[in-house]
Amino acid sequence: MTVRMADMAWPEYEKRIKAGAVVILPVGSIEQHSYHLPLGVDRYLPALVAERAAEELGAIVAEPVLYGARSQMRMGGGQTYPGTTSLSPVTLMHVIRDVLTAFIAHGAKKIVVCNGHYENMMFTFEGIDMALKDAKMLGVDDVRVMRFEYWDYMTRETIDALFPDGYPGMELEHAALIETSLMLHFRPDLVDMSKLPNESAGDFPAYDIFPATREGVPPSGALSPPNRARAEYGARIAGDCVKGIVADIRKVFGA
Amino acid sequence: MTVRMADMAWPEYEKRIKAGAVVILPVGSIEQHSYHLPLGVDRYLPALVAERAAEELGAIVAEPVLYGARSQMRMGGGQTYPGTTSLSPVTLMHVIRDVLTAFIAHGAKKIVVCNGHYENMMFTFEGIDMALKDAKMLGVDDVRVMRFEYWDYMTRETIDALFPDGYPGMELEHAALIETSLMLHFRPDLVDMSKLPNESAGDFPAYDIFPATREGVPPSGALSPPNRARAEYGARIAGDCVKGIVADIRKVFGA
Amino acid sequence: MTVRMADMAWPEYEKRIKAGAVVILPVGSIEQHSYHLPLGVDRYLPALVAERAAEELGAIVAEPVLYGARSQMRMGGGQTYPGTTSLSPVTLMHVIRDVLTAFIAHGAKKIVVCNGHYENMMFTFEGIDMALKDAKMLGVDDVRVMRFEYWDYMTRETIDALFPDGYPGMELEHAALIETSLMLHFRPDLVDMSKLPNESAGDFPAYDIFPATREGVPPSGALSPPNRARAEYGARIAGDCVKGIVADIRKVFGA
Amino acid sequence: MTVRMADMAWPEYEKRIKAGAVVILPVGSIEQHSYHLPLGVDRYLPALVAERAAEELGAIVAEPVLYGARSQMRMGGGQTYPGTTSLSPVTLMHVIRDVLTAFIAHGAKKIVVCNGHYENMMFTFEGIDMALKDAKMLGVDDVRVMRFEYWDYMTRETIDALFPDGYPGMELEHAALIETSLMLHFRPDLVDMSKLPNESAGDFPAYDIFPATREGVPPSGALSPPNRARAEYGARIAGDCVKGIVADIRKVFGA
Amino acid sequence: MTVRMADMAWPEYEKRIKAGAVVILPVGSIEQHSYHLPLGVDRYLPALVAERAAEELGAIVAEPVLYGARSQMRMGGGQTYPGTTSLSPVTLMHVIRDVLTAFIAHGAKKIVVCNGHYENMMFTFEGIDMALKDAKMLGVDDVRVMRFEYWDYMTRETIDALFPDGYPGMELEHAALIETSLMLHFRPDLVDMSKLPNESAGDFPAYDIFPATREGVPPSGALSPPNRARAEYGARIAGDCVKGIVADIRKVFGA
Amino acid sequence: MTVRMADMAWPEYEKRIKAGAVVILPVGSIEQHSYHLPLGVDRYLPALVAERAAEELGAIVAEPVLYGARSQMRMGGGQTYPGTTSLSPVTLMHVIRDVLTAFIAHGAKKIVVCNGHYENMMFTFEGIDMALKDAKMLGVDDVRVMRFEYWDYMTRETIDALFPDGYPGMELEHAALIETSLMLHFRPDLVDMSKLPNESAGDFPAYDIFPATREGVPPSGALSPPNRARAEYGARIAGDCVKGIVADIRKVFGA
Repeated sequence: MTVRMADMAWPEYEKRIKAGAVVILPVGSIEQHSYHLPLGVDRYLPALVAERAAEELGAIVAEPVLYGARSQMRMGGGQTYPGTTSLSPVTLMHVIRDVLTAFIAHGAKKIVVCNGHYENMMFTFEGIDMALKDAKMLGVDDVRVMRFEYWDYMTRETIDALFPDGYPGMELEHAALIETSLMLHFRPDLVDMSKLPNESAGDFPAYDIFPATREGVPPSGALSPPNRARAEYGARIAGDCVKGIVADIRKVFGA
Repeated sequence: MTVRMADMAWPEYEKRIKAGAVVILPVGSIEQHSYHLPLGVDRYLPALVAERAAEELGAIVAEPVLYGARSQMRMGGGQTYPGTTSLSPVTLMHVIRDVLTAFIAHGAKKIVVCNGHYENMMFTFEGIDMALKDAKMLGVDDVRVMRFEYWDYMTRETIDALFPDGYPGMELEHAALIETSLMLHFRPDLVDMSKLPNESAGDFPAYDIFPATREGVPPSGALSPPNRARAEYGARIAGDCVKGIVADIRKVFGA
Repeated sequence: MTVRMADMAWPEYEKRIKAGAVVILPVGSIEQHSYHLPLGVDRYLPALVAERAAEELGAIVAEPVLYGARSQMRMGGGQTYPGTTSLSPVTLMHVIRDVLTAFIAHGAKKIVVCNGHYENMMFTFEGIDMALKDAKMLGVDDVRVMRFEYWDYMTRETIDALFPDGYPGMELEHAALIETSLMLHFRPDLVDMSKLPNESAGDFPAYDIFPATREGVPPSGALSPPNRARAEYGARIAGDCVKGIVADIRKVFGA
Repeated sequence: MTVRMADMAWPEYEKRIKAGAVVILPVGSIEQHSYHLPLGVDRYLPALVAERAAEELGAIVAEPVLYGARSQMRMGGGQTYPGTTSLSPVTLMHVIRDVLTAFIAHGAKKIVVCNGHYENMMFTFEGIDMALKDAKMLGVDDVRVMRFEYWDYMTRETIDALFPDGYPGMELEHAALIETSLMLHFRPDLVDMSKLPNESAGDFPAYDIFPATREGVPPSGALSPPNRARAEYGARIAGDCVKGIVADIRKVFGA
Repeated sequence: MTVRMADMAWPEYEKRIKAGAVVILPVGSIEQHSYHLPLGVDRYLPALVAERAAEELGAIVAEPVLYGARSQMRMGGGQTYPGTTSLSPVTLMHVIRDVLTAFIAHGAKKIVVCNGHYENMMFTFEGIDMALKDAKMLGVDDVRVMRFEYWDYMTRETIDALFPDGYPGMELEHAALIETSLMLHFRPDLVDMSKLPNESAGDFPAYDIFPATREGVPPSGALSPPNRARAEYGARIAGDCVKGIVADIRKVFGA
Repeated sequence: MTVRMADMAWPEYEKRIKAGAVVILPVGSIEQHSYHLPLGVDRYLPALVAERAAEELGAIVAEPVLYGARSQMRMGGGQTYPGTTSLSPVTLMHVIRDVLTAFIAHGAKKIVVCNGHYENMMFTFEGIDMALKDAKMLGVDDVRVMRFEYWDYMTRETIDALFPDGYPGMELEHAALIETSLMLHFRPDLVDMSKLPNESAGDFPAYDIFPATREGVPPSGALSPPNRARAEYGARIAGDCVKGIVADIRKVFGA
């Protein structure tokens, strides 16, 4: 029994929505992820975490928003890397809005936005806000939307275990220990550990300059060294995230 | 060696683009496709055809535009079916624009838009047009964009063989003989032939009425009977399309 | 007693709307139409057909939308001809929306969009859709909008009589037999039969290329030879269209 | 030899543009004009004045922008009258922009915007501004656009002769002496002098209130009494306007 | 007890709104005002007038909209002066809309827009209109918005006293007698009377030309000579305006 | 000699820009700041810090963007507090773009955006990006824009001194120790220490829920207790920020 909306025929989708299923929309990005990870890291991870959670919940996972918000230098190396392919903020907000509004028109009442790209965060707020205005136009006022960044479900224990010298914050974790470990866990076929960069962490001033350059970004585009990454870490992080997300969706929606 | 952009690291993508690779953007839809086909038919077919063509051409296939233009009653059964999840025209045009503009910024000079959802057609024109204006802003004036609907590469011989009583035109082929055969060929795991509808073709007046209803649409949402579909037909159609697309991309881009 | 909204004073318009009159909005274009037809063909024909239908129905014909969607090479020769003057899709959708929303605010419940330019079609859908959302904001939920391309009311008999070798479809009929005949019927003063092109039909590949060129378009811009055009054919086509449109408006609106 | 762009074939238009012809775009409105004048007054007058001027100048008159900016209570009685059919400011600005940009793409270097609806004024500025930005994108920097309200060409002598008690300003002249006289001159078939209102002038406070009401607007919608209107006055005003416009276009463009 | 919203804590603001306080939004501009006045004249005057009126009324004055509509040559010397810093019309309309919508969401029922920049006028209409549509979405239909240009409250007596040779109209009063006198009254520290220009009034044709130049604008940017300005005149004008505004707000809102 | 652009006449502004002055645009917000601080905290602080820095640098401070991005529950208590008055993201991005584009048109080459409201950050990126595209249209390619959040210039020593138990991050510092101290330093007249809330810090889950509630937000709206705030701390923080900002502007622009 698939959890993927794209793989269901419409009567199956309708049946599940009528039965109160949660619909999860992963939101990702196509963005440089150093020499050893593919451009699609942020396109895969939130969708894969969401699918695992959905299997436990009997939820539906919609096709992800594959292209996300512009990469910023201090968060993902910025737009100067070939392959980083982004939507303008307005486009992204409207993609999220249009898709959520469609779910609401289908009768979905329990919607989750699972974000996997740091720069998307502020734009998911607005997309959700517009969709809820559309809901009012449709005469619907009993829909609720939950949103989060999946990595915020890593437990304190896991963070402490993985970062004995202190957690730099998710902004600097781009293409680094967490994402590499998760990819080794979920999609090892897409990781090339022979290409691990040999660099220091990014070193940024307190300001941004435009037109942007790569100044301060390590050459590979990884903002912190990914070298300690291991599949077991990925399994642990994924376990934390799926467990926390399942628990919170149950708490919020009683699903 | 993958053709999928999302599965390449950025240095590989950069190398191929610098070597003159063609970049193909599939544009699809999430839309009802009768009882026996999944919502993602238009999300899969143009991407799968594009990947096959890319393998022959050494081209790159970008992640598809998964959500497409609003379904119209006389083309895809309209927006009243649960599961049909669409972008507004403005959003769709901007998604295509933003993604193509990114490819152009990466240095791509040979871009192909491979459309697999009838209602998308007019909006791809505008998305391309805006991206070419962006190219001018970037100081790029040697990029060319080619676009087509993949099914227009079915040969006359195939059409005559499949439709001995005459081809109704692709609008009415929604979830019908062609799409079912293609899915049987490419993704038989997603087709449930036990759920084939038993209906006549859609019977539409010369006009549309809004607010839209399902009047004239067969209950399943298939606009013509898919019952004669066979995997061999799908293989033949796919063969036509891949062959024609490869030949035309070579003709246009010398690729 | 005029059917033209622009020629009525407001109390007359108000009276008719209150009495349940149908309001028809013709949507046209300013676009090259070969050597022998004026730029305004699509600006005149849908308005003239609509006025004839309105006379039979006691309907009101609003001033047409004169500028329409961008011409596409395989539909109208494209934007490269001097004189072709088009709106961007977004502008066009909003013009239609704003005008229909005004009719709805006036109290009109029976609205017809009569399209006379192929490329406008998809954008009329969206304009209507937005106007119906505006209607909800105004607290109006009993308005219905009907839309069509006027040429779809040519009967099979007329098509067979005019095209003994087969009908190429309206896309290729640009500035050709149908439009020339209709102009000879309605506005012979604007046709210069001494300037008929002497060309073959357009010969297009399955794809479009951007930036667009005139490749494949006959030099005049007529996509098929208009040479067999006659005023009698125009009268017959116009008769079909007016008759069919009147009948369908009566069927839909009981007008 | 027509001056109307819509009535020319494209080679004729191209020839004139190449020869340096001025292109005039009338911008009007569909708006209540009291009991005795049709809704289309502002749709007719700037186009008719422009055509007369064009005949003297060998200029081209494009199809007018028929629907204009929202009527304001103190300028045209506001949006509460049935029949008043307006574009939102954004739509209007984009219509003007798109049309002017097309003229520029055709090679026109001398463009005139002839406004005939008071509320349009500020929005024509922006439409022109955007078109000149588009011109830069097209690599064109030698186009100039002239704009005016046609009534500003009434001479002081005419104003004094027509308004011996003082000219209230064009805002209050809505459906009043000037417009009624001009319609009696140009289109007497559309004036019904038996329906002249018998009212005082509008009496407005220094403020506007929203949601708007008709408070202060004379019931007919004429903001000043039109009763002294005569065709001779219309001829005199039209003469002033055409003469002044022709002279200024010659001065500006050397046309 | 401050009247400035920015200087209140939220419980104070909430209390006053619940008690039925009027909220006034000044709308200004940053625009050249000749050699002797600062760029912020239009940013200060409507706010200062509004604050005085608010003190009498117990009203709240929101932070002003500081950046306004593009300056036009015949109204403020146009955009060619360094320092003139304007919003596009669309941006301005949305700023006004967003701010008013927020007040409505707070529960404000009595809202006043006090405009101090001529070119803003038409755009305030649309901003208010959009906010009232937002109000409907919020389920609020008992809010009213009043708007005016503050200078329209100068009395006839004051105008006659200040302009014995006739009032040229506010368009030509840019950086001239009225504004200089008002600044001498309210903010003499920002006026440098040693820099008064020595020029004639602007002399404009009946048309505008784009791209705009400073042709016809006196070099300083003052459209009429400010030389007779005196603080006493400013006090008189301010007195008129505050008195008239207070009276009309009381009349409209019973405040 | 003022640093405030609004208080300069245009020739002074022009002279300074020609001499290479830096232009600083503060970006703020009108947002609840607990019981003891005014709604305008974010409207004052970045402007005041910028003015101090400008005095050292001989820079110009433009009028701030007073209304900012929507407050989010976990960053500023969200939109449910009366008085919080925000722009939509699209409006805000365009305000920043329009203002920066104007500076660029004036000839400014060194532009600084000084942000004082957490939720504004992502939108300043896009506003700057659009302005730099506009710059290209103007033919300007030697302008650079620097942006930062002023609080990121607090030194590690100051943070350690002020937060002996650990710094919760600026998101949770809303209306808390830092902002209260800064207001006590800069504008003690606007702080009412008698109204300090007596609450614990906000306690938020890893997710957001929409429609938003105040769940998890302390009743006052302060996200952490402000009780230890002192003017001396404010002086220290302000000193850090001004010093760091001055140094970095000098480093970046050689100003």
